[in-house]
Amino acid sequence: MDFELDPRLAGSSIELGRFGRSRVLLKNNAHFLWLLLVPETAVTELHELPADQFEEVSGQTRQLSTWVKGAFQVDKINVAAIGNIVSQLHVHIVGRNRDDVAWPGTVWACDEKKPFSDAELIDVQTRFTLAFNSARSS
Amino acid sequence: MDFELDPRLAGSSIELGRFGRSRVLLKNNAHFLWLLLVPETAVTELHELPADQFEEVSGQTRQLSTWVKGAFQVDKINVAAIGNIVSQLHVHIVGRNRDDVAWPGTVWACDEKKPFSDAELIDVQTRFTLAFNSARSS
Repeated sequence: MDFELDPRLAGSSIELGRFGRSRVLLKNNAHFLWLLLVPETAVTELHELPADQFEEVSGQTRQLSTWVKGAFQVDKINVAAIGNIVSQLHVHIVGRNRDDVAWPGTVWACDEKKPFSDAELIDVQTRFTLAFNSARSS
Repeated sequence: MDFELDPRLAGSSIELGRFGRSRVLLKNNAHFLWLLLVPETAVTELHELPADQFEEVSGQTRQLSTWVKGAFQVDKINVAAIGNIVSQLHVHIVGRNRDDVAWPGTVWACDEKKPFSDAELIDVQTRFTLAFNSARSS
């Protein structure tokens, strides 16, 4: 389909790869290991996806949650589909630690931002590619 | 299984009914139509549920989201599994409106609380029971 990533999502993140009909983005904020899973759809509500794509996105959310928790040894996973500001459907998968800047609050109420260094980005990208054997799309 | 609802979840909500192996609670805050879906499990991370229960909970989340959006004509559904404070696994399904007290922020960063009136509670309970043909468990 003719799909274009919302510029607000694209501008605040790095694309790690593709996952079936979804894209996986990393929020460029080193305070958190925070992924956005963006299914290629014009639907804006998770529950309004067609059944097969809803199942696909649910399974991808599960896989990415498992990966973040295991690969980055975080204390907790937070997952959410909100979309009050950017309506393009995106699922947040966020690794949280008891000593992170927002704990126990949510990342959506946290204004703290710190871009990843190049070395950190390469590290995350490499782990992602090794875990999912996915080439970067750009 | 021997399952007891966390007293912080029980104390802030009303049980609307059962849904397979899950309970459906209504947060007692009339600012939002805010459900908690609580699978009977000791697992604290959504992605760590056994595959069949993960699918069950995903499907229930979808059904409840559809119901909240349709029955209460809200503008947007927010769904999340967070659990940073109350670790017992619970999925938030929240009906949001562009004129609600927290918009466009999230409900988790909002301290505004207003208990439902008895009439409002009866209305929500009746709609839930009619929609899902579920008897209250208490």
